[in-house]
Amino acid sequence: MNRLNKALPSPMTTAPLATQPLYLSAPDAVTLVRRLGLQHCIAGMAQHIRADFLRWPDFDKSARVANHSQGGVIELMPISDDTAYSFKYVNGHPQNTAIGLPTVMAFGVLADVATGSPTLVSELTLTTALRTAATSALAAQTLARPNSRVMALIGNGAQSEFQALAFQHLLGIDTLRLFDIDPQATAKLVANLSGSGLTLQVCASTAEAVQGADIVTTVTADKACATIVTADMLVPGMHINAVGGDCPGKTELAAAVLDRAKVFVEFTPQTRIEGDIQQMAADFAVTELWEVLSGTRTGRDHDDQITVFDSVGFALEDFAALRFMHEAALTLGLGQRLALIPQMADPKNLFGILLKGVSCAVPQKLQRCAVVSA
Amino acid sequence: MNRLNKALPSPMTTAPLATQPLYLSAPDAVTLVRRLGLQHCIAGMAQHIRADFLRWPDFDKSARVANHSQGGVIELMPISDDTAYSFKYVNGHPQNTAIGLPTVMAFGVLADVATGSPTLVSELTLTTALRTAATSALAAQTLARPNSRVMALIGNGAQSEFQALAFQHLLGIDTLRLFDIDPQATAKLVANLSGSGLTLQVCASTAEAVQGADIVTTVTADKACATIVTADMLVPGMHINAVGGDCPGKTELAAAVLDRAKVFVEFTPQTRIEGDIQQMAADFAVTELWEVLSGTRTGRDHDDQITVFDSVGFALEDFAALRFMHEAALTLGLGQRLALIPQMADPKNLFGILLKGVSCAVPQKLQRCAVVSA
Repeated sequence: MNRLNKALPSPMTTAPLATQPLYLSAPDAVTLVRRLGLQHCIAGMAQHIRADFLRWPDFDKSARVANHSQGGVIELMPISDDTAYSFKYVNGHPQNTAIGLPTVMAFGVLADVATGSPTLVSELTLTTALRTAATSALAAQTLARPNSRVMALIGNGAQSEFQALAFQHLLGIDTLRLFDIDPQATAKLVANLSGSGLTLQVCASTAEAVQGADIVTTVTADKACATIVTADMLVPGMHINAVGGDCPGKTELAAAVLDRAKVFVEFTPQTRIEGDIQQMAADFAVTELWEVLSGTRTGRDHDDQITVFDSVGFALEDFAALRFMHEAALTLGLGQRLALIPQMADPKNLFGILLKGVSCAVPQKLQRCAVVSA
Repeated sequence: MNRLNKALPSPMTTAPLATQPLYLSAPDAVTLVRRLGLQHCIAGMAQHIRADFLRWPDFDKSARVANHSQGGVIELMPISDDTAYSFKYVNGHPQNTAIGLPTVMAFGVLADVATGSPTLVSELTLTTALRTAATSALAAQTLARPNSRVMALIGNGAQSEFQALAFQHLLGIDTLRLFDIDPQATAKLVANLSGSGLTLQVCASTAEAVQGADIVTTVTADKACATIVTADMLVPGMHINAVGGDCPGKTELAAAVLDRAKVFVEFTPQTRIEGDIQQMAADFAVTELWEVLSGTRTGRDHDDQITVFDSVGFALEDFAALRFMHEAALTLGLGQRLALIPQMADPKNLFGILLKGVSCAVPQKLQRCAVVSA
């Protein structure tokens, strides 16, 4: 027990120090979502994401930093405004499920820009699923036809239920047409959403699933230049929510689909590297979502237009999601404090933390040597 | 107490799960350094850093990502080889000490490249001071004259004692000539090192401190284009270990010093942005430290040459330091496991963690709705 407890900071009855971030574990995040309700969390994140997209010019933005390997990728996604900073660590390893690990694992940090002190260390695996679904629904509220009721959901893995429920609650989708190359993934989705009120239609192919769909959501995991949706599947007025083409060499839409659509992105420099438009010329026309939300540029121009949200996931969404989780955790009293940063009586005296009150344990060399005057 | 303990994972008596990183807090790191001894830790880190610099081409390297603000900077420093990934979060806020916070705070992560699972979450404030000193000493072992005994130490803040002890133990420095614009910083250093065996000479200016010095170490914090060391202070054979010019707009050496010296750097693309050579032309000649360590290029060419190690701190040093701390923590049984990543029976069923065994706490919407068949 000693090994488990000795690293814990002073009791929560005292105010946390400025350098002790709140730690929100994965079990804490589950508790938070259960207590507030999934619908409330997705809607709350969508509100935070919208609010932050509306002040787009306030942010110091950059494309994420990716370290690619044979089996996947590990990425860091930093962003900041004048008061807060955040980053997310996230991997993508499609083969992980074969050894019992998630394809995507994530955690993140909020920090105070004025001092650089971390304020929150949080799980982001569950949170990313929520914020991705919230962002997709937020975009579709602006880009899909208002009367959309049927959504094809291609890829029924870890993200799929969150997409389904976000579109049900924020757009009024009532019917899902499902396809996954792994029938067990679809069976899992059907079991998970059997009490949701959604009509669930299991299909035998992508082509079958998109028939009659107002919205097509693709959330597939394979790191390949795939063409899940091809031009022959398009019908006038369709909105495509392309979530899984989010990495160099990882696409879901045929180039001909992009050619026939009006394409919307999060942060253009990042999407040109990672999104489905990585297949297109560097000057391929795109509109950024924040421009539509702020009324600077138009979204869907008419009911027959085909719209594509080429979503790769942008740091600003995690910034907004971390803010939501931080506020909710403080309200609910969830989490604990981490002693991640040393506490010093004199901040210029880092060396002092090795010495104070521990004469029996100071470094050997310091104990041994004679005192020498200055 | 419940709030402090409920986020803790299962007891350490069971093997940690693949997704539960070891958490090494700042108090844990202090315990680790006290138990092993500071000298041993700096020497061990220097060995790890040397070993990793010798396999330089194996690493996926990039310049760090910096978010600058009026009062400072927050940076992320990722790097990876075929098996391990690391990043460091680090800030630099020179005004922090006025409000009782450290100028530099840091933490970092090791992860498994094959799966993306984090394996270590560690404090890096203390560790960074150790690894920076280890790197400086490693460079000086190659670049300074072998018979160097006297070092000027300009800037007597949080990093200074670590530099002093690294040079004492790894190079045989026996005398320090000290200067800081804040006399209290120097007094703190003298008190901390009074039992070290070093002869400590307090000086009234940088010009006085560098007199008779074989090595000049600059570790100042001011974020300004300063010229701490000017050309008139140079003497043949001097080695300058320039640590504090490590950020755009933050330098310590006059351009004329660089013009008269052979200049060595860690990772050229980053140093041209951040180091003292930010003042120089883009084609100003530099040699990378790994080239000298590996014997690819020469270091010091003759006893009269002036050498400069324009050190800004590179991600590879943190990678090596994190490996050292991880190995040492496992050996000593320090740290605890973090439930930062959700545990799932089926990794494709992230949604399932919101449902299982908690019928009283599932999201409201899911409880309310009638079962609808597929």
